[in-house]
Amino acid sequence: MARNGTLIQQVMAHVRAGIASRSYLPGTRLPSVRQQAGLLGMSVSTVVEAYERLAAEGLVVARPGAGFYVNGPVAPLALLELGPKLDRVVDPLWVSRQSLESAQTTLRPGCGWLPPDWMFEEGIRRALRAQARGPLAELTEYATPLGSPGLRQLLARRMAATGIEVSPEQVMLTESGTQAIDLVCRFLLKPGDKVLVDDPCYFNFHALLKAHQVKAVGVPYTPQGPDVQLFDKALQEHQPRLYITNAGIHNPTGAALSPLVAHRLLKLVESSDLVIVEDDIFADFENQHAPRLAAFDGLARVIQIGSFSKTISASVRCGYLAARPEWIEGLVDLKLATTFGVGRLAQDIILKTLTDSGYRKHMDLVRQRLAENMEKVAQRLRKLRVEPALVPQAGMFLWCRLPQGADAAAVARACLKDGVVLAPGNSFSQSQSAGDYLRFNVSQCADERVFAVLARALSQATAGR
Amino acid sequence: MARNGTLIQQVMAHVRAGIASRSYLPGTRLPSVRQQAGLLGMSVSTVVEAYERLAAEGLVVARPGAGFYVNGPVAPLALLELGPKLDRVVDPLWVSRQSLESAQTTLRPGCGWLPPDWMFEEGIRRALRAQARGPLAELTEYATPLGSPGLRQLLARRMAATGIEVSPEQVMLTESGTQAIDLVCRFLLKPGDKVLVDDPCYFNFHALLKAHQVKAVGVPYTPQGPDVQLFDKALQEHQPRLYITNAGIHNPTGAALSPLVAHRLLKLVESSDLVIVEDDIFADFENQHAPRLAAFDGLARVIQIGSFSKTISASVRCGYLAARPEWIEGLVDLKLATTFGVGRLAQDIILKTLTDSGYRKHMDLVRQRLAENMEKVAQRLRKLRVEPALVPQAGMFLWCRLPQGADAAAVARACLKDGVVLAPGNSFSQSQSAGDYLRFNVSQCADERVFAVLARALSQATAGR
Repeated sequence: MARNGTLIQQVMAHVRAGIASRSYLPGTRLPSVRQQAGLLGMSVSTVVEAYERLAAEGLVVARPGAGFYVNGPVAPLALLELGPKLDRVVDPLWVSRQSLESAQTTLRPGCGWLPPDWMFEEGIRRALRAQARGPLAELTEYATPLGSPGLRQLLARRMAATGIEVSPEQVMLTESGTQAIDLVCRFLLKPGDKVLVDDPCYFNFHALLKAHQVKAVGVPYTPQGPDVQLFDKALQEHQPRLYITNAGIHNPTGAALSPLVAHRLLKLVESSDLVIVEDDIFADFENQHAPRLAAFDGLARVIQIGSFSKTISASVRCGYLAARPEWIEGLVDLKLATTFGVGRLAQDIILKTLTDSGYRKHMDLVRQRLAENMEKVAQRLRKLRVEPALVPQAGMFLWCRLPQGADAAAVARACLKDGVVLAPGNSFSQSQSAGDYLRFNVSQCADERVFAVLARALSQATAGR
Repeated sequence: MARNGTLIQQVMAHVRAGIASRSYLPGTRLPSVRQQAGLLGMSVSTVVEAYERLAAEGLVVARPGAGFYVNGPVAPLALLELGPKLDRVVDPLWVSRQSLESAQTTLRPGCGWLPPDWMFEEGIRRALRAQARGPLAELTEYATPLGSPGLRQLLARRMAATGIEVSPEQVMLTESGTQAIDLVCRFLLKPGDKVLVDDPCYFNFHALLKAHQVKAVGVPYTPQGPDVQLFDKALQEHQPRLYITNAGIHNPTGAALSPLVAHRLLKLVESSDLVIVEDDIFADFENQHAPRLAAFDGLARVIQIGSFSKTISASVRCGYLAARPEWIEGLVDLKLATTFGVGRLAQDIILKTLTDSGYRKHMDLVRQRLAENMEKVAQRLRKLRVEPALVPQAGMFLWCRLPQGADAAAVARACLKDGVVLAPGNSFSQSQSAGDYLRFNVSQCADERVFAVLARALSQATAGR
C-alpha cells in the first residue's frame, strides 16, 4: 500500500487488457516479472504487487518457481441478473425474490424492511470500528454452541421487559429469525403434520412450511388476534402440532393481540400438545408492548423467536430463540449438524449496537417517523380509493383493500414493469382470500412515482368495471 | 463519548450496586435524573447518559415521560456453562461440542481449525476497517438471493484454477459449507434414502444425515480415495441418491484422491442417478491440487461445496455451492424459505480478504508451518507408539492408530478431564471400525501438555494388556 498505487493499477490494467484482447491466452504464462518491468518501464516491485493482486482476484494463477499464468475463461455475469423476473408466478416467495433481486433504482413499497438511511448508521459503523480493533479470537473463532453469553444475557433482560421470565441458558442464537423457526420445525414436525398459521400471515411462513412438507391451516386474523372460535374449530379438526404467529405487531395487518384473545387462546390449547412459535421481530417498533403469549404461558408451550434484521441490519445476520430448558440441547445439536457454527462476528456487532447508548433514541426517532409516514401514506392511498383495513398502532405495514375488487397480483405485475415492487395479498393468504389486498411499507413510499405508477395500474385494472 | 467516561461509569456502578443489594427493587422507579444528580453531586447530563447506557444493557427500562424503572430479575449465567460435558456419549457431535464449549485454557488437538494466531489477522482487520467506512447499504441491506456478484465471480475463477468450468450464476453463497450441504440434502433427499460416505469421514456428515433421517452407508477410504470395488458393491446394493466426500485433502485421513480412482469412480456411476457432493473446504491448504470430481464431470452430477472457515475466519460465516444451472433456482428458493437472507457483511469481508494481495503469501506461510508441525507432531506421537496411518501431503490432520488396540473413546474421555479435547476415531466411522484411532490437528499441538496428558491416558488405557 505504501508503494505507488497508480503505477500498480496501470500494470493491472495492462494485463487485464492483454487477457481481454487474447494477447495473453488462457493457460499461458505471463511475461516474467523482470521482463514485464522492462517492457513497461516500471520497477520490479511494482509489477510483483500488480501480479499478486491479479492472482488474489483469480485472474492469473501463481505457480511457485514457474511464474504467473492466465487463468481459464469465466463466463461473464449475465447482464440481466439484476432485474425483475416478470414471468415468475405470484407464490409465497414472489415478494422476497422481486424485492431482493431488484436493481437499486427500483422502488420497493412491497418489501418488509426500512431503507438504509433509516437505519442506525452511526451505531453500526461504531460497532464495526470497535470490532476491527477487538480481540483476534472474536474475529476468527467459532462462537460457542449457544452463542455469545453477553448477547444472550441482554436478550433475557429485554424479554423480561415484555414479561417473559427466561434464563440466558434458554436462549440460543441463530443466523436469523427464519433459521430459528426452521430449526423448531425440524425439531418438532414430520412430513404430513398440520400447522396453524394466521390468514393472512408473513408469506415466508408458507414457503418454510412447504419446505417441511407439512400442511398449513389458516385461521382468520381479526384486529384483536386470531379468530378464537375458528381457532378452536381448527384445533379440534386438525390436531395441529404447531401454531406460528407474530408477537406484537402482526405482519401484514399491523394488528396486535389483545389480552383477552391471548388468554382465551392459551386456555383453548391447554389440553392439546400444540406448541406455539411467537415471532417477536417487530418488538422495538411498538409504542406500547402488546401482550406476549410467551409471557402468559411462561415459555411452557410457547417458543419465542426474534432477530435484528428490521431494526439494526439485515446484512449482519443474527437471530435467536427462547424455549423451555429441556428442548435447548436438542436444538443446539440440530443447529450444529445443519449449519455448524453461527457467526460470532455478527453476534458481537449486534451486542455492541444494542448496548450503544444511542440505540434507544434512534428507535424513538424511527417510531416517530413511521407514525408520520403512516398518516401521510394512508391519505395518499385513500385518494386512490385504496383503503387501509385498519390503522395499525405501530410498525411499517399498512394492509389495504383495492377499489372494485381489482386483482392485486395483476396490479403488482403491472407495477413491476414500471420498476415498483408491490406485495400482493394472496402471497400472505392460505385461503387465497386476499386477492384484492396489498401490503404497503410506509417507510418505502417517499418517492412520488410509487403513487403515480400505482394509479396507472389501478385505472387499467378497474377499467370497464 | 465526549463527556467524562469515568463519572458515567461511577453512576452506572452505583445503580448496579443498588439493584444487586435490592435497594432498588425490580419494577420500581429509579430516582429521577435530577434527584440522582443531586444525590451524587454529578451533572444531569452525566446521569442521563448513565441511565441510557443501563437501559441499552437492559438493566433498567425507560418509560417515556415517567422515568427509568428497574427491570425484572434475570437468572445468572450458570457458572459451569463453559466447561467439558464429561458425561456426553461419544457420538458424531462429541468432538464439535467439546471443542466449541471448552474454556479458553483447554487444549484442542482434536478440533478442526487453526489457532487464532495462525490466521490472516492483518487482512481481516483491514477488511473490517474498510467495511466500517463502506457504503451504508452494504452494512444494513440483505444480500441478493444468490449472494455478492463480486465474490461469486472470484469463486468461479478460483474453481477454474482446479479445472472446474463454472459461470458465476451457477454459484450460490450460503452461511457455511455445512448449510450448503444441508440445502442439497433438502433438495435431493427424502427420509429413508441411502447416502454413501467415506469410512472414515468428517463426523458432521453423520450428524447431518441423521438430521435428514436418511441411511448413511460407509465405503472404506484408501490412501488413493474410496475403495473402488466396495464403492461399486454399495452402489449396486443400496442404489444411493448421494455420495458426500471431500475434495482434495481428506478429513480425517489427510489422503487425496488419485486421478485413476477419480476416473473409475465417475465411470462406475455413469448409469446411475447418483449425485456427488464434493466438499472443497481445504483447497487453499494443498501444495498441489489433487483432481476434482467436479472438474472431470463438468458439474453434471457433482456439486462442489466450499467455505472460508478454515482459512480466513470461522467467525465470519460464508460458504458456497456450485451446481448445474437448472438446480440453482430451486436451491435459492429453499435457502430463502429456510434462512431468508445470507449475510452481506460476511460476504463483503470474505471478498475483501481473499482479494487482499497479502492473502496468498499468508497461505504460503500457513502451508509451510503446517508441513513443519506435521513432521514434529508425527515424531512426538511415534515416541508414544501412536502411529500415523499415512503421511498426508498437506493439511492439518494426522490420522493415527493407538498402541495395543487402546480404546480411543476412553483415552479421549480421560484427556478431557485434564483439559485436552481429542477426536476419537469412531466419531468419524460409520462401521465403528476406528475405535483405536485418533485424529490430531498438528496446528493445535504446540503445548507440551498435549503429549504429557496423552501419555498418561495411554499408559492407563494399555495397562495390563
